[in-house]
Amino acid sequence: MTANRTIGEVGERALLAEFATSAASTPDVVVGPGDDAAVIEPGARVLSVDTAVADRHFRLDWSSPEQIGARAVVAAVADIAAMGGRPTGVLIALAAPTTASADLVVGINRGAAGRAADLGAAVLGGDLVAASEVSVSITAVGVLDGVAPVRLGGARVGDVLAVSGPLGASAAGYAVLASGDRALLDDPALRAAVDAFRCPAPDPAQGPVAARAGAHALTDVSDGLVEELGLLCAASGVGVDVEAGAIPITAAAAAAADRLGDDPQRWALAGGEDHELLGAFAAGDVPPGWMVIGAVVAARPDPVRIDGSPPRVRGWRSV
Amino acid sequence: MTANRTIGEVGERALLAEFATSAASTPDVVVGPGDDAAVIEPGARVLSVDTAVADRHFRLDWSSPEQIGARAVVAAVADIAAMGGRPTGVLIALAAPTTASADLVVGINRGAAGRAADLGAAVLGGDLVAASEVSVSITAVGVLDGVAPVRLGGARVGDVLAVSGPLGASAAGYAVLASGDRALLDDPALRAAVDAFRCPAPDPAQGPVAARAGAHALTDVSDGLVEELGLLCAASGVGVDVEAGAIPITAAAAAAADRLGDDPQRWALAGGEDHELLGAFAAGDVPPGWMVIGAVVAARPDPVRIDGSPPRVRGWRSV
Repeated sequence: MTANRTIGEVGERALLAEFATSAASTPDVVVGPGDDAAVIEPGARVLSVDTAVADRHFRLDWSSPEQIGARAVVAAVADIAAMGGRPTGVLIALAAPTTASADLVVGINRGAAGRAADLGAAVLGGDLVAASEVSVSITAVGVLDGVAPVRLGGARVGDVLAVSGPLGASAAGYAVLASGDRALLDDPALRAAVDAFRCPAPDPAQGPVAARAGAHALTDVSDGLVEELGLLCAASGVGVDVEAGAIPITAAAAAAADRLGDDPQRWALAGGEDHELLGAFAAGDVPPGWMVIGAVVAARPDPVRIDGSPPRVRGWRSV
Repeated sequence: MTANRTIGEVGERALLAEFATSAASTPDVVVGPGDDAAVIEPGARVLSVDTAVADRHFRLDWSSPEQIGARAVVAAVADIAAMGGRPTGVLIALAAPTTASADLVVGINRGAAGRAADLGAAVLGGDLVAASEVSVSITAVGVLDGVAPVRLGGARVGDVLAVSGPLGASAAGYAVLASGDRALLDDPALRAAVDAFRCPAPDPAQGPVAARAGAHALTDVSDGLVEELGLLCAASGVGVDVEAGAIPITAAAAAAADRLGDDPQRWALAGGEDHELLGAFAAGDVPPGWMVIGAVVAARPDPVRIDGSPPRVRGWRSV
């Protein structure tokens, strides 16, 4: 599959699938590679790792070191929540040029540790290595507190699809920052979108809430809603019908789209890194505060349909 | 401490110490940052993360992708062993340019997964991101199987110091590879040293062996014996007297030193990445196969002495 092809040509998803084929398992592994996070016994521990690289996942001139660290923790912890887990700890592996300011890595670490503490997670350890670019890799650890892990592949025909919060705000903030337009950057109506890019603030406690509500499937929206819907369909062997107008967006994302002449629904469908949760529930089980965006239907050749048609956008991939 | 200074100027150890001050803890943390690995309850889980970066920890023209992956797992698992733990799982976070060969990351992953399987550890998950250079970050997970965690700071005056295997072979192999001398690279007498650089093969089962034997302190020799001795002294509030001639070296390291006109004892003292274990034991408790290299003495201004004198070499630092 990979002979004479580059990583970019093969793609992240196909390579992670290839990796999964070489992953030997052991009896203590309840959920292995391929879901948002692994679950191991004893103690129903949930584990995931997530790496953010400068100029790919963040920009040093767009975010403070503290925001970069906090954002990395949010992304990693979202994978714990996406199994129904509660975060308990993080390991923080930093890489940076030796010529970079020490304040940079101290700030990234402080932001990561601070957000971890806000979420009830201890800093368990870390690593610091020299590299030619700045990156931060967060291993998040959690527990299931007695709920069964909620898999990506559990959605059933007849379920409703719901999300735990608005989508597209991070992509809106990216667009505002990328515009370089000082008037937009200083516009208080857009501030919340810029903040959402610099560090989104989904509530990971909604993971256990969804698990207790009986969610059949759960994931976090890290690579764009369309991308996550495709993964959920593939894992569950189903199709989904989503109503674009039902997808919640923030006022700041709507304002940013108005100023930039863009479409907030496009950001909600294709923009990643909001890290809100997407779940499939029996119709009466949607938790309070979650918003229904569609329904699970039988498998079909084009599994994901938005307003009845195949999506015109794709998600964001890190490779 | 860090204002207006670079990462290189402040140094890895000082920065990790600074990070530890911002690490909030929680009641489930038995051992937090600052030791070889963290220990959390329930289940006495042991956790550590270790990153290797191209051209700093390995070279793509010196090692195969499989060796690079296997070596990263060996380094991370050694931190589990250094608490007395048994490895049960790994998470593999890879970064590479999108223009790199897909076979490269498939090979690194295969080598990491294969070595993990050899050591009884399942692959629990991973990540793949685009970056400008190749790196691999391994989170190792283990369990203590009922033994108490063996801390770095438990060495007592009167203890003997012992190591689980020979030191300096990885540094010898590095020297052979760095020589670029085809005759040396093809010399079967040096092959084991080159192999030790490409992927050392310490026995992580010696960690639980040492813990069950009652080790007072334990760490793995990743940054050079002198460096590790200094950390053990600082954590334990002791001094150490080491006899250089008692430090075990391999025949291949001795042969490489002979060919290159270098000193195998210098490699054993300063060379890192052998990942053998260093322990402090009551005199009668040294496990079979371990080699006594010195004694723990009272704290003093120059804590580490080799053959009665302060060491003339320092360890290897990753920053």
